[in-house]
Amino acid sequence: MKIAIYGYGNLGRGVECAAKQNPDVELIGVFTRRAPETVKTRTGIPVYAAADIAAHKDEIDVLIICGGSATDLPKMTPVLAKDFNVVDSFDTHANIPSHFDAVNEAAAASGHIALISAGWDPGMFSLSRLYASAILPDGKDYTFWGRGVSQGHSDAIRRIPGVKDARQYTVPIPAALDAVRSGSMPELTTREKHLRECYVVAEEGADKAAIETAIKTMPNYFADYDTTVTFITAEEMQRDHAALPHGGFVIRTGKTGLDGEHTHTIEYSLKLDSNPEFTSSALIAFARAIDRMHKRGVNGCKTVFDIAPADLSPLSGEELRAHML
Amino acid sequence: MKIAIYGYGNLGRGVECAAKQNPDVELIGVFTRRAPETVKTRTGIPVYAAADIAAHKDEIDVLIICGGSATDLPKMTPVLAKDFNVVDSFDTHANIPSHFDAVNEAAAASGHIALISAGWDPGMFSLSRLYASAILPDGKDYTFWGRGVSQGHSDAIRRIPGVKDARQYTVPIPAALDAVRSGSMPELTTREKHLRECYVVAEEGADKAAIETAIKTMPNYFADYDTTVTFITAEEMQRDHAALPHGGFVIRTGKTGLDGEHTHTIEYSLKLDSNPEFTSSALIAFARAIDRMHKRGVNGCKTVFDIAPADLSPLSGEELRAHML
Repeated sequence: MKIAIYGYGNLGRGVECAAKQNPDVELIGVFTRRAPETVKTRTGIPVYAAADIAAHKDEIDVLIICGGSATDLPKMTPVLAKDFNVVDSFDTHANIPSHFDAVNEAAAASGHIALISAGWDPGMFSLSRLYASAILPDGKDYTFWGRGVSQGHSDAIRRIPGVKDARQYTVPIPAALDAVRSGSMPELTTREKHLRECYVVAEEGADKAAIETAIKTMPNYFADYDTTVTFITAEEMQRDHAALPHGGFVIRTGKTGLDGEHTHTIEYSLKLDSNPEFTSSALIAFARAIDRMHKRGVNGCKTVFDIAPADLSPLSGEELRAHML
Repeated sequence: MKIAIYGYGNLGRGVECAAKQNPDVELIGVFTRRAPETVKTRTGIPVYAAADIAAHKDEIDVLIICGGSATDLPKMTPVLAKDFNVVDSFDTHANIPSHFDAVNEAAAASGHIALISAGWDPGMFSLSRLYASAILPDGKDYTFWGRGVSQGHSDAIRRIPGVKDARQYTVPIPAALDAVRSGSMPELTTREKHLRECYVVAEEGADKAAIETAIKTMPNYFADYDTTVTFITAEEMQRDHAALPHGGFVIRTGKTGLDGEHTHTIEYSLKLDSNPEFTSSALIAFARAIDRMHKRGVNGCKTVFDIAPADLSPLSGEELRAHML
C-alpha cells in the first residue's frame, strides 16, 4: 500500500515513523503548504508542495491528512476526497455529523473512500463505547481522559496577558474511577471526574495572582473544575513538560440476569507516551483497511464503526483465526 | 429480529435473559434434546424438541446454539447452518480453524451465515488483541484470565477419588500484571502469570493429603502452577462458591517513534459476575449483526473479526456518529 502524508506537524511526523513499522506500507512523500525546501523530514522522504498533489494521484493508494480539526480538516478532507482515498483524525465531536456529510458527498461522487475521525478519541474509545453498549444494553458508560496534555487548554492559558508559556494536564480523579468500577453507576459532575493541573511560565514582572485567577475562573475551560496552577521557569518547562503524553479510560458497567442480579465491568484504557504518535499508528491501520475496502469496490465516507477489524491487520483471515482468535 | 435458543443450560438461560434487554429481539422459543415437557424456562417461553426444529425454519432469523465446545458444537453448528443463520461460542482455540472450515462449507452451500466463537475469549479478548496489534506492530501482548471459575479445572478435580465437589479459581498474579503494564515486555512463565486456587469438598474419610498431592501434581492442569488447596464443607461450597464469576485482562505494550523512544500501553479488562450471562449478551449482539449481514446478501462462516462494529448496535449509523463516536 502506497501512502502519502498531507501536512507535516506532530501528527505527520508520527505517521512517518509509524509507516516504517509496517512492512506492507510504502510512504511516498510528504505534502506541505510551506515551501518544500524549508521542510526537513525525519527519515529523508521527499517533500512536495501541497499545491502539486494532483500530479501524484496515481502514486497514492491512501492519503493521510494530518491537519487540525478547527480549520484545516473541514476544508481539506472533502476537497482531497475528490481525488484520493483519505483518512483523517477529525476530533471535534459535535461537528462529526456535518463533516461526515461533506466528506461523504465528495467521496461517493468521485468513487473514493474516506475514513474520518480515526485515532483514539474519537477512534478506539468510540469503538470501546460501541462494543460495550451493544453487549450490555442495561448499563452506563463513562469516559475519563488523562493523565495527559490538553493542547486546547494549554493554548487558552497562553492567551492570558503575562503568560509566556503554559502546559495543562487533564487528570482523572481516582475516587471517581473507583466509584464507576464498583458498578454503582454514579452520577458524576464535571468537577468530580477530572481535575486540571496547569504549569505556567510568567513573563517577568507579571501579576501571578491575576494570572492564577484568570485561569481558575475561565468559563468552559476551567471554571467547572478544581484547578491547580504552578508557576515554573522556562527551563523547567523545557525539561519536565516537553512531551505530549495522554490516555484515559472508557468504562461501562451493566446488569444482566432475570432481575439485573449480576453486574459486569468492561474497561478499556490507554497510557500513551506520545499522543500524536499513537494517533498516527491508528491512522496507518485504518488506512490499510480502507485501501482493502476500496479495492473491493467500497466508496463513500466511513468511520471506525464501519470497519471490520480483520481489515486492520496485515495478517490473513486464516492467520488471524489460527493465532489471534 | 426473531431468535431461538438451541440447548438450554447456563448459556441458554443467559440468552433468554439477555433477549429481554434488547427491544429489537424477539425470542420465539427454546429447542432441547431433553423431553420438552421436563424443561421449565425462566421466562415462560415455549420449549420444543430439538428434533422438530426444521418445522420452525421460517420463524427464526438467527439460531443461537448454546452447546459445549468439546462434543456438541463441532457436530451441531455445521448441521444447523444448513437450515439456519447461526451463532455459537465455540471456545477450543486450537480447533477453531477446522470448526470454521466445516461451518463455512455448510453455510456457504446453503446461503446462510454463521458466526462462530463469539463471547469474550474467544470474542472480545480476540478483538482486543487484533486492534492492539494492528495499531502497535512493534509490541507484545499478554492475556491474563481471572479471577474466575474454570469449569474444566473444577471438573478435573472432581474426577479424583475421594472428591465430592470442587471449584477452581484461576487468579492472575498482580506482580506479573504490573510487569506487563510497565512496558518492559517481560518473558513470563506459566507459573509467573497465574495461580490456581482450589476449594474441595472431600468425601467422608477420604485421604485429604493424597487428594492435595493428586491435584498439585496433575499434569497440564496444575503441575506448572502454584496451586492452593483448601478443604471446605458442602455447605460452604454452596454458600460461597455457587456463582460463576470470571474475567481477565488483555494488555499490549508497544513502541513508536524514530527509535522506539515512546512506549504505549493498551489494556482491555473484564470483571464479570456471571461468565455465561456475559457470553450470552455478546451472542445476542453478534446475532443482530449477522441478521443484518444476511439481509444484505452475505453468507458463509464469519468470526468476530469480520463484523463491522456498527452492525452490533441497535442504533443507526447517524445515531452512532452523533452520540458515540
